Amino acid sequence: MTKTTGIKLKDLAKLLVGELSGDGEILITGISGIREAKEGDITFVSHQKYKPELEKTNASAVIATKEFKDLNKNFIFVDNPYFAFSKILKYFYEKEYKPKGVDPKAVVGNNTVIGKDVSIYPLAVIGDNARIGDRVVIYSGVYIGDNTVIGDDSLIYPNVTIRENVVIGKRVILHSGIVIGSDGFGYATDKGRHNKIPQIGSVVIEDDVELGANVTVDRATLGKTVIKRGTKVDNLVQIAHNVVIGEDSIIVAQAGVSGSTEVGNHCVIGGQVGFVDHIKIGDNVMIGAQSGVMSDVEPNQVILGSPAIPHKDWLRAQAVYQKLPEMRKRIVDLEKRLAELEKKA
Amino acid sequence: MTKTTGIKLKDLAKLLVGELSGDGEILITGISGIREAKEGDITFVSHQKYKPELEKTNASAVIATKEFKDLNKNFIFVDNPYFAFSKILKYFYEKEYKPKGVDPKAVVGNNTVIGKDVSIYPLAVIGDNARIGDRVVIYSGVYIGDNTVIGDDSLIYPNVTIRENVVIGKRVILHSGIVIGSDGFGYATDKGRHNKIPQIGSVVIEDDVELGANVTVDRATLGKTVIKRGTKVDNLVQIAHNVVIGEDSIIVAQAGVSGSTEVGNHCVIGGQVGFVDHIKIGDNVMIGAQSGVMSDVEPNQVILGSPAIPHKDWLRAQAVYQKLPEMRKRIVDLEKRLAELEKKA
Amino acid sequence: MTKTTGIKLKDLAKLLVGELSGDGEILITGISGIREAKEGDITFVSHQKYKPELEKTNASAVIATKEFKDLNKNFIFVDNPYFAFSKILKYFYEKEYKPKGVDPKAVVGNNTVIGKDVSIYPLAVIGDNARIGDRVVIYSGVYIGDNTVIGDDSLIYPNVTIRENVVIGKRVILHSGIVIGSDGFGYATDKGRHNKIPQIGSVVIEDDVELGANVTVDRATLGKTVIKRGTKVDNLVQIAHNVVIGEDSIIVAQAGVSGSTEVGNHCVIGGQVGFVDHIKIGDNVMIGAQSGVMSDVEPNQVILGSPAIPHKDWLRAQAVYQKLPEMRKRIVDLEKRLAELEKKA
Repeated sequence: MTKTTGIKLKDLAKLLVGELSGDGEILITGISGIREAKEGDITFVSHQKYKPELEKTNASAVIATKEFKDLNKNFIFVDNPYFAFSKILKYFYEKEYKPKGVDPKAVVGNNTVIGKDVSIYPLAVIGDNARIGDRVVIYSGVYIGDNTVIGDDSLIYPNVTIRENVVIGKRVILHSGIVIGSDGFGYATDKGRHNKIPQIGSVVIEDDVELGANVTVDRATLGKTVIKRGTKVDNLVQIAHNVVIGEDSIIVAQAGVSGSTEVGNHCVIGGQVGFVDHIKIGDNVMIGAQSGVMSDVEPNQVILGSPAIPHKDWLRAQAVYQKLPEMRKRIVDLEKRLAELEKKA
Repeated sequence: MTKTTGIKLKDLAKLLVGELSGDGEILITGISGIREAKEGDITFVSHQKYKPELEKTNASAVIATKEFKDLNKNFIFVDNPYFAFSKILKYFYEKEYKPKGVDPKAVVGNNTVIGKDVSIYPLAVIGDNARIGDRVVIYSGVYIGDNTVIGDDSLIYPNVTIRENVVIGKRVILHSGIVIGSDGFGYATDKGRHNKIPQIGSVVIEDDVELGANVTVDRATLGKTVIKRGTKVDNLVQIAHNVVIGEDSIIVAQAGVSGSTEVGNHCVIGGQVGFVDHIKIGDNVMIGAQSGVMSDVEPNQVILGSPAIPHKDWLRAQAVYQKLPEMRKRIVDLEKRLAELEKKA
Repeated sequence: MTKTTGIKLKDLAKLLVGELSGDGEILITGISGIREAKEGDITFVSHQKYKPELEKTNASAVIATKEFKDLNKNFIFVDNPYFAFSKILKYFYEKEYKPKGVDPKAVVGNNTVIGKDVSIYPLAVIGDNARIGDRVVIYSGVYIGDNTVIGDDSLIYPNVTIRENVVIGKRVILHSGIVIGSDGFGYATDKGRHNKIPQIGSVVIEDDVELGANVTVDRATLGKTVIKRGTKVDNLVQIAHNVVIGEDSIIVAQAGVSGSTEVGNHCVIGGQVGFVDHIKIGDNVMIGAQSGVMSDVEPNQVILGSPAIPHKDWLRAQAVYQKLPEMRKRIVDLEKRLAELEKKA
């Protein structure tokens, strides 16, 4: 915990713009899960199914919706307990940012402009003609190529690689092992040999995007690969050349988006999903884990399976799938009985 | 664009060994996609379906096959427009290579031999007894282990790891985050404990191979893991110990090849495909995305699905799969009608 | 080979606590696979199916179970030939460890405690208040964050990233490109925007764990992500926040375990398997490659498929799946014949 002393429950309620119920004078000194909570802790609950655990928790207070109001606990009632929980975590644990400056063991190229109050750690490497915004943090082992731009307040963890001519927005978080701007996978095959198509386009990562560890984002052949504002991408995801991912979308670990495919705004892509190239996914589409998306998807769909089909159809087909051996038996049985009838007739 | 002035269309036609149709005197100053092209640009078209877009393009000239000859455009006709396009991109954008030498902040071990005209960037690390060929480029954060050999003209992007005793061919391109020569995944289990099998073999990456970002290639237990000449591998692919990949094959992102499996020449492996270990895939095999390959595959097959089956069988089974709920209803209906008939009989 | 001279077969038999059969005086000078073996080599065989190859091998001696005793070869009989093979590999190839000390080009933070006989290579970076055990090897390009602890005899290959407040046990092997302690993938969505949940928990990697190249292990939101003693994880696997993996389990390449899911002891997880979040897998569970695990799994199960079902059911359903087109024809045939009968009746 960063904060050494606690905070009164009534003051936390104010902070969360929530409704206090119970003893506002108690001191909250920590935050934890329902099961692990001890006296002094605040916890949160987001679903009725956790009611039994909530009854047994040692937490001194609970963030919840009003659904839980019949329980005899100290509460802060809010509409979105999970969101309130994230705010409290920030309150308790977020450290004040103290710029470290540019470490003398960092390597910075020619004509590169470094903003105010940055922290550039030893053995980070920045190329020529790059622009690094204010309060940017660049850890050790990071490589930033020539002409690349990093927006204000972005945070780049150790051993990230950002190649040349890439644009990273503001408040972007890039986890370790990420590669941005590697060449797109493009070859012109002639007489059985694969000839490399120069990949001379760029990558744009817009504001407030977060990319997980070991994610790869290829640069475009021509034009740019884009991940738009507010989208969050989990570990080990592949974003191919010329892909466009919309705003405020979620892509879970190990999914892969093939070349030139476009994903809309507010989509949720499950883990290990794959997309073929050159298709267009509308806004607000949800795609179940391990699906294989082979064609365009209209907005506001929930799809699943490989190849992916509407969720309802998948559930129906899946239910029958497990009964296939039984169905087969019933067909055999029908055939026997019918043959007997035919003999009689 | 690297070339500051343009090139006449007739000169481009000569360069591509293509047939000029239209005004050969116009100056081509750029290259772009059909939609984005502006005056002065040349574009290309590889499929009849783009004819409507071609009619509307602002490009000053088009690379195409003769199929398009009835359109009123300036053309260069070639047999393989995509290949011609790659040549023009190279013409316009490929920079002349200027060796940077060995940066004083690079770390080079004992008895390591460095070729002519190399570029070894700051904070690259090369071990002892290694051999680096002529005109090799090694970016920052690259680690090259003891006794490893890198062939002439190879290009190693930042933060690549190549362990000891590995052999990399000529003109190989290795993208950031690649790991070559990590230990194969081998354990002898005894009384429930997994005992590590030392992985003392090597890896050989032959000439003209390109591996994508964050690809992993394990070293062999004994002998060697091999990726043969001209094969291209996309991001986040896993190549296990003792695997052999043939020549001129393509492996799309996030596929995984298990231990000792052999893939033939001229194969195309889709994204997220998995292979069990110790199987053999013949030459010219195509495998659809997300397939699971569980047994040997004869040459010249197209397979799909998990477990993978011939493409035709898969299409047929898949077509029926979606009609499973309907089939089930028809069986129920048959049973009712048959029962009725049986009662009457 | 590290050992320059050979070892007599009878002495190898003693080393392996095996039973010698044949000429114990012959000198064994190498070890290799059945096919590649030449005179002087010892090889091993673990399955009856390799009997024909064994008859043709040039190896001077063979490690095998007594099943093979009717063959006219020099043998060392053991119960677990693969395990014995691993011991011989260690005997021949394992080099004595010689500590290199802390290279002056490594960067070590304040108040960090370094154990005895370590090897810390140039351009490794270790933060403040870290603790590095005895005989630990840390290669170039490794980043170790503040307050992180590395146990004795652990081996960290180049370009690994271990973030702050992580605990690594003894004899742990971490391959290149691994990221441990990256933020878990957690957001509270409010009015369509995804708000980051601070990930303030930790990661614990227990003794004798080995993680493959480019594996990612996220830190917990609260509490810790744990991989328990003796578990081995292959390349490119994703372990999400708050996951617990039991002891002595095996996770094959490119599998992904979602947030808060628990995997038991002695499990074997196939390649490219995915798990949904918040489920519990019992001990001794085997899961086939590419499976999608969507709910809790009882101990001692073998499951397969996406969604994963018991292996037997999967085999049965799969067998029918391939006959779907035929089943469909039989239904159509039944319908025709029944209609005819109904007309008559």
